[in-house]
Amino acid sequence: MNLDRLLKSFKDGEISLEDVKNTLKPVEDLGFAQLDLHREKRIGFPEVIFGENKTTENLIRILQTLVAKGKRILVTRVDPSKGKSIKKELPEVVYHEIAACVTWQKKDNMKEPYPGYVCVICAGTSDIPVAEEAAVTLELMNSRVVRINDIGVAGIHRLINKLDEIKKASALIVVAGMEGALPSVIGGLVSKPVIAVPTSVGYGASFNGVAALLGMLNSCAPGIPVMNIDNGFGAGYFVGLINHNMNGAKKNENV
Amino acid sequence: MNLDRLLKSFKDGEISLEDVKNTLKPVEDLGFAQLDLHREKRIGFPEVIFGENKTTENLIRILQTLVAKGKRILVTRVDPSKGKSIKKELPEVVYHEIAACVTWQKKDNMKEPYPGYVCVICAGTSDIPVAEEAAVTLELMNSRVVRINDIGVAGIHRLINKLDEIKKASALIVVAGMEGALPSVIGGLVSKPVIAVPTSVGYGASFNGVAALLGMLNSCAPGIPVMNIDNGFGAGYFVGLINHNMNGAKKNENV
Amino acid sequence: MNLDRLLKSFKDGEISLEDVKNTLKPVEDLGFAQLDLHREKRIGFPEVIFGENKTTENLIRILQTLVAKGKRILVTRVDPSKGKSIKKELPEVVYHEIAACVTWQKKDNMKEPYPGYVCVICAGTSDIPVAEEAAVTLELMNSRVVRINDIGVAGIHRLINKLDEIKKASALIVVAGMEGALPSVIGGLVSKPVIAVPTSVGYGASFNGVAALLGMLNSCAPGIPVMNIDNGFGAGYFVGLINHNMNGAKKNENV
Amino acid sequence: MNLDRLLKSFKDGEISLEDVKNTLKPVEDLGFAQLDLHREKRIGFPEVIFGENKTTENLIRILQTLVAKGKRILVTRVDPSKGKSIKKELPEVVYHEIAACVTWQKKDNMKEPYPGYVCVICAGTSDIPVAEEAAVTLELMNSRVVRINDIGVAGIHRLINKLDEIKKASALIVVAGMEGALPSVIGGLVSKPVIAVPTSVGYGASFNGVAALLGMLNSCAPGIPVMNIDNGFGAGYFVGLINHNMNGAKKNENV
Amino acid sequence: MNLDRLLKSFKDGEISLEDVKNTLKPVEDLGFAQLDLHREKRIGFPEVIFGENKTTENLIRILQTLVAKGKRILVTRVDPSKGKSIKKELPEVVYHEIAACVTWQKKDNMKEPYPGYVCVICAGTSDIPVAEEAAVTLELMNSRVVRINDIGVAGIHRLINKLDEIKKASALIVVAGMEGALPSVIGGLVSKPVIAVPTSVGYGASFNGVAALLGMLNSCAPGIPVMNIDNGFGAGYFVGLINHNMNGAKKNENV
Amino acid sequence: MNLDRLLKSFKDGEISLEDVKNTLKPVEDLGFAQLDLHREKRIGFPEVIFGENKTTENLIRILQTLVAKGKRILVTRVDPSKGKSIKKELPEVVYHEIAACVTWQKKDNMKEPYPGYVCVICAGTSDIPVAEEAAVTLELMNSRVVRINDIGVAGIHRLINKLDEIKKASALIVVAGMEGALPSVIGGLVSKPVIAVPTSVGYGASFNGVAALLGMLNSCAPGIPVMNIDNGFGAGYFVGLINHNMNGAKKNENV
Amino acid sequence: MNLDRLLKSFKDGEISLEDVKNTLKPVEDLGFAQLDLHREKRIGFPEVIFGENKTTENLIRILQTLVAKGKRILVTRVDPSKGKSIKKELPEVVYHEIAACVTWQKKDNMKEPYPGYVCVICAGTSDIPVAEEAAVTLELMNSRVVRINDIGVAGIHRLINKLDEIKKASALIVVAGMEGALPSVIGGLVSKPVIAVPTSVGYGASFNGVAALLGMLNSCAPGIPVMNIDNGFGAGYFVGLINHNMNGAKKNENV
Amino acid sequence: MNLDRLLKSFKDGEISLEDVKNTLKPVEDLGFAQLDLHREKRIGFPEVIFGENKTTENLIRILQTLVAKGKRILVTRVDPSKGKSIKKELPEVVYHEIAACVTWQKKDNMKEPYPGYVCVICAGTSDIPVAEEAAVTLELMNSRVVRINDIGVAGIHRLINKLDEIKKASALIVVAGMEGALPSVIGGLVSKPVIAVPTSVGYGASFNGVAALLGMLNSCAPGIPVMNIDNGFGAGYFVGLINHNMNGAKKNENV
Repeated sequence: MNLDRLLKSFKDGEISLEDVKNTLKPVEDLGFAQLDLHREKRIGFPEVIFGENKTTENLIRILQTLVAKGKRILVTRVDPSKGKSIKKELPEVVYHEIAACVTWQKKDNMKEPYPGYVCVICAGTSDIPVAEEAAVTLELMNSRVVRINDIGVAGIHRLINKLDEIKKASALIVVAGMEGALPSVIGGLVSKPVIAVPTSVGYGASFNGVAALLGMLNSCAPGIPVMNIDNGFGAGYFVGLINHNMNGAKKNENV
Repeated sequence: MNLDRLLKSFKDGEISLEDVKNTLKPVEDLGFAQLDLHREKRIGFPEVIFGENKTTENLIRILQTLVAKGKRILVTRVDPSKGKSIKKELPEVVYHEIAACVTWQKKDNMKEPYPGYVCVICAGTSDIPVAEEAAVTLELMNSRVVRINDIGVAGIHRLINKLDEIKKASALIVVAGMEGALPSVIGGLVSKPVIAVPTSVGYGASFNGVAALLGMLNSCAPGIPVMNIDNGFGAGYFVGLINHNMNGAKKNENV
Repeated sequence: MNLDRLLKSFKDGEISLEDVKNTLKPVEDLGFAQLDLHREKRIGFPEVIFGENKTTENLIRILQTLVAKGKRILVTRVDPSKGKSIKKELPEVVYHEIAACVTWQKKDNMKEPYPGYVCVICAGTSDIPVAEEAAVTLELMNSRVVRINDIGVAGIHRLINKLDEIKKASALIVVAGMEGALPSVIGGLVSKPVIAVPTSVGYGASFNGVAALLGMLNSCAPGIPVMNIDNGFGAGYFVGLINHNMNGAKKNENV
Repeated sequence: MNLDRLLKSFKDGEISLEDVKNTLKPVEDLGFAQLDLHREKRIGFPEVIFGENKTTENLIRILQTLVAKGKRILVTRVDPSKGKSIKKELPEVVYHEIAACVTWQKKDNMKEPYPGYVCVICAGTSDIPVAEEAAVTLELMNSRVVRINDIGVAGIHRLINKLDEIKKASALIVVAGMEGALPSVIGGLVSKPVIAVPTSVGYGASFNGVAALLGMLNSCAPGIPVMNIDNGFGAGYFVGLINHNMNGAKKNENV
Repeated sequence: MNLDRLLKSFKDGEISLEDVKNTLKPVEDLGFAQLDLHREKRIGFPEVIFGENKTTENLIRILQTLVAKGKRILVTRVDPSKGKSIKKELPEVVYHEIAACVTWQKKDNMKEPYPGYVCVICAGTSDIPVAEEAAVTLELMNSRVVRINDIGVAGIHRLINKLDEIKKASALIVVAGMEGALPSVIGGLVSKPVIAVPTSVGYGASFNGVAALLGMLNSCAPGIPVMNIDNGFGAGYFVGLINHNMNGAKKNENV
Repeated sequence: MNLDRLLKSFKDGEISLEDVKNTLKPVEDLGFAQLDLHREKRIGFPEVIFGENKTTENLIRILQTLVAKGKRILVTRVDPSKGKSIKKELPEVVYHEIAACVTWQKKDNMKEPYPGYVCVICAGTSDIPVAEEAAVTLELMNSRVVRINDIGVAGIHRLINKLDEIKKASALIVVAGMEGALPSVIGGLVSKPVIAVPTSVGYGASFNGVAALLGMLNSCAPGIPVMNIDNGFGAGYFVGLINHNMNGAKKNENV
Repeated sequence: MNLDRLLKSFKDGEISLEDVKNTLKPVEDLGFAQLDLHREKRIGFPEVIFGENKTTENLIRILQTLVAKGKRILVTRVDPSKGKSIKKELPEVVYHEIAACVTWQKKDNMKEPYPGYVCVICAGTSDIPVAEEAAVTLELMNSRVVRINDIGVAGIHRLINKLDEIKKASALIVVAGMEGALPSVIGGLVSKPVIAVPTSVGYGASFNGVAALLGMLNSCAPGIPVMNIDNGFGAGYFVGLINHNMNGAKKNENV
Repeated sequence: MNLDRLLKSFKDGEISLEDVKNTLKPVEDLGFAQLDLHREKRIGFPEVIFGENKTTENLIRILQTLVAKGKRILVTRVDPSKGKSIKKELPEVVYHEIAACVTWQKKDNMKEPYPGYVCVICAGTSDIPVAEEAAVTLELMNSRVVRINDIGVAGIHRLINKLDEIKKASALIVVAGMEGALPSVIGGLVSKPVIAVPTSVGYGASFNGVAALLGMLNSCAPGIPVMNIDNGFGAGYFVGLINHNMNGAKKNENV
């Protein structure tokens, strides 16, 4: 914020009263939405659009605004039919069908990914869409991703097979439905930070992911934070932010 | 029941109408309780007394009746102060402090235990009382028990260490609180029947055992039935019944 | 596991390092799924496929792999339209419409069923699909099944009529929705192990099976373990495992 | 209400405006409580005092007012220490220790009980206090009560033994904790109205009576209404009201 | 049951062993359903069919059996399309569209309704279908019904207008969604038994009728029992049973 | 009510007994609905019709009655297809598509709006329909509305930008889904009354608005009352009532 | 905030950079607490202290700071023993035992109360403490209060008796436990704003106030906002804020 | 694990079969507990002891074992009386009263803390114990901590005052009860990773922290993972692990 500096510049007549106020109002008002354009500056990544409750028309309008003004875009929860319509109107965006995401990045914005990689692990094949949402988010945030699918705790051998790859990651996102026990087991085997994502996969007393959510919150492996049910994006974003701070952020003192 | 035979005997005048009715009314009426004295005959084990909501006086009176008429007794949920009072009044019973149970068995009723053993496993030290309730029940029902404590999933090595012993058991009772993941992991490693018992151990979003209960009900390892929260007795009883049917029951055609 | 023997063979040069590692990695990687091919060896029955969230294409690919490599297959939660497509592609499998299951068994694998039978009982006609899932699972696991439908507690006479047949079973699976009281009543009448399966049948405060689940977990008949809501497969599998251990397992020391 | 008659009397000058207003304000204002003195007239029974959250002092003051002005009194949820203090101050009242109720009745108010009897049944000995609250309420309301304790569904024989007595009652109040299945079984055996009362007896997933409450609400026996958890009074009152309407009420046209 | 008499007849050779057994097995086995044909004899009304989870074909087959053997039929939860198909196949039945019920009655079975009437009251227009289910049930059970709709507590004047009619009823069924307060208010105004039926009408924190259910269970008006959410049938059946016992039942000592 | 005056007029023969009774029965009985026509007189606004569970036919009939007899009409929860049909039949009404409301007002009833304005604020674009329901209600109740959309707490700058406009409002309605934190933040910044409306916007552990509802009920900013989930109408009505009482109500002593 | 003016004054050298920053940091840092001293200026009332989780020592230290710097103090949830200790140390404060509040006001700060009065109504005597918390808050905020106790819906006559007094109030706070129906009934009778406060009074399925909370959120009377369970303070504060804005606030343009 | 290397060493006769097995069994068996001694090696930090359900005697015995064999110890949830007893027996440990933790560290193990600092922020003074648990954990894990207390969202100025200090941290742990909104607001202002910890502070509909937990899981600020209610330790451990991996871990290739 540098309020001191801003105020001094203003007092010294270097910037106008209007400038001071504009610096505090970095919002594009679309009427139905207030796009937060300074968010990338402020917190390291542009505003992410939650696509689920928005019409295709509104999504296209938001995308057009952001393509014109931003560097990177992520829209989550875009079902295939919306995805197709958007892609038709804005061919420059990428639609990730399994992840149900739309992404776009300014060509000159693309950078070498950060060193190391993040492991995105899921317990069962039905959990893959949530894991993919995390992976797509991470990749847009400049992190390398290694995906490991279908290694749930009922066949611990499958996990042991992949343990070397898991241990070398810089962080682990573990996605599981049903009883959500995979993060506990992994958290007890490795020294890397684990973020748990419960999914709504299951039936009966899984209560659309509540069983997995509670299981993860009560993990007997220490220090495993948990995202909302099916929130792959959030986990990807969080780990992306860690990578951003460890690697790129330091060089850019404006952030 | 042998209703046919009973009715024939009656018709043939071998037994009286009163006899027929008595056979169907095998109950000792204490006023505040109807002791089901034929239960051992009917389902293989005498009525188990739930001690929690009963006064010490009532428990003693029930015990006196059962010692006089039965062969084996199990009273669960007897806190130490009640246990002490009962023991004072009825020195022939055994009070198991950790399991919070009172047991008694007619001397001439004791038999060689059934072949093989049942593994009673618990995830953490706080789960031991529930595991002990299962173990005491099994032992009174003539089964051998091997106890394995504190091998929760956050240190999978502890489990692997014990795997040989676990695999040789005829059945497994797995007791766990918090996220309740241990039955899933064990169920994926062994070919023996696993019964899961959630405990109220945990805090916050464990909701007094609900997280463990839901985790176990949603286990991704197939075929793991679940008892009520903290119901170690039930698990012991169920496995005891299997052993009873596999071993002793066949010889006694009246059951 | 016989880790000792494995390591000795390796030291003696009888098996290669690769062999040791392969023995611990018995997984077929389909990309979207890691098929656990050693599960039958390890725990007595091959991996069961949960069909609900998988596409018909993926199910067919999994089935093709398993038919090629395994001896028995069970896929649950396969709705009729998926079932029809699978049957068309793989005419050798069986589709069980009421149970919503696909099964397949290698011809030379079929054996004489184990002695005795399991009673699969349901309280109301709406509970039949869940009961059938249990029955189909049991039959694939080599157990004989006797089905008894529609004998809920509101007409206790219907239950009494069937009591002889129930009492002679080696184990009982009792399936009920609404208040889920049938296992309690049966558990009080017989000396055989009872496994309870709540169903989502009911309305209003049945909360899609929660009332039945809670009723069963709190059964006043002792020692009745409970499966997840609508999890007929799990109950069948569990009892199948008991039968497998009592009968066939002993002869096969590799398991 | 006879509003017509009241208004006519007023118009004819037989009663004053003040009288009209007083008839509509039949309340004794104690400051902390508005005693509804016309309730007996209006709905057939005086206001019942819920003792749980009231101080002994307030209860005594309320009782003194009601003894002076009323014919019958019922105070529920009076623990033994409050009960003793009240009894000391007002020796004419009766304190029912198991039911935790205080009752009083004007001597000349006592009448021959209504013909027939109500069966108050409970499933386990821990349910007796709730059943007693129902029984005491019924007796104060002039109904005869037959108490049957400890005949829960896990020993259906105990219930069969008492069936004749149960069938001859005019109505049945069935009190049960845990899975609350007793009303379903009884409701399927008799043609008399059954009112179910869940109790908080149980542990773990009984959730202080929620399991029993849900079980009863979802009873597969038709037409069984349910009271709040532990609300024995309510069930007694409801059946008392039915008896009152069937027997005494018709003769008293003022009600 | 008259077990004594039955056994004596059997001993005296008046009835065969087969007869004794048949008397205890009054069930028509349709394979998918065990129709309880003696229920009318045993508890005063034939088995009621819950139509929701049954196919039209099964419903027709059940109806055909019952028309052939019974005197009265009630099928609840029959949606219009099922209703139409049934009506086409069995023109003698009546389909009640708002109540979603099918009824049928043997011509010579119809009797003069019992004296007096039952008031079926609902709070809002959306509650009418549930109220109608109660009313149709009552009418089939020979009770007169007065329907009063849309007099919820937010306009207490509407209730006051109908108070005379309400007070003269022999019993009141009060149906309400949202906060479910109407039974409390009516229960405080009249001396007749009130049965409360919560409905799933509402949105948001009504949780499909849970708010109304809890409101009714916690009614501050004494003695109001509650049915399951949307269970109009149950309330009608219960009050029908009271009427049956007060009026017709006494003459028929076999019931 | 002026009961005194009414009774005096009656006594003085100025009004008939029928008149007295009619004054207390201001209801139009449509059979399926009891329209409360005196509500505007009694509580300042006519009965509002909840459109969700009513057929288009019934809505039209209700609207016709109200247009004939009333001054203002509000129907909420009218989906577009119902809205279109109503508009076709009754072209004089207004259909608000985003708010899903139908309104109508007698021409000569329209007045100058009350001084000042109400701010209707929503956190995200998906919350707009709920906010619009509040706004449409307020405008029909003669209040000016300023709408501020999409200023959720994740971008507090957007809120700061609008703070001047917010502070000058006479009251604030704050609509938010997800964690529902916006009312807390606004309540800590301004001295105007804030009414919070949770919405069902969110996924997973938002539980259709429960998270937002609980967040608002537990707001650490003091004195923020909360409406039901998605109940924009209720918030608008409540603030409309405050404005009505502060401004117009005083002049009309009949209300 | 007058940011424009502040910045101009700063630019003109009228105030220092330190002044600008201080204006934005109106906090007294006690280490364990950050007292928000400008809150009265900002939102019309000083920070209210929640006493429940604070030690007596901390409460006294906070009170000493606030007495030295503020004009009015309110501490809620102060149990009698804390209250006594505080009163001993700071004799100038008032301890309200039923409301469990400590208040203090600078002598010269006391003003003539605002015109009109607020009705604080409670349904039962057990609800009085919550109602008193509301009343004490209102009185400290300069509003007159009329208290009406124990007029719950089970005796609607008690409410009718008080209706004139209720109707003349400027706003109504309605406090109720159990089913929480009183606000619905009052909201249907009067044209004044009603704020509902659920209490934890009740037992069983009242779930410590959840039943009342849900009942109030689903009120069929329109426009009734709801506070957290037992939050009398919040309701008092909210109505106090309305009165403040209608009366005093306008004269003080700084607020 | 370096299984390859281990196996090779074994084959080469460098290590014995016993050694291989011991490497996989790094557990100290105390009977009631299996201390996982290799955990520090395996995952970077020794096993943390949960003190709540353990007796003082057991805690002392565990501590003695760990002091003898380990380098660092953390015991959480140690109430003051247990803390005092432990401190008396083992004067070398530190008891942190507010955090309710016991820590110990080998003198020669202490190192210079990692560069940078972690901000542990709490919303209200009642949340401090949970925040302290996080802080004590972090400090034992070699991280610097800056504590910021009592800056909840109802006084956003308090937060703004501390924003510079917050922004310079390497990670943020945000602890809050009630509606739990603080992480959302902070997450929208800074580019550093935020971990949210809900606390059980609150009353009524806070449901012992559920409201805060749900609020945090549904945060509209992206990428905020959540710990269990009151789990300060977990948050501290997780951030400690990140710091460990960013700083120290790389140098130690054995981990």
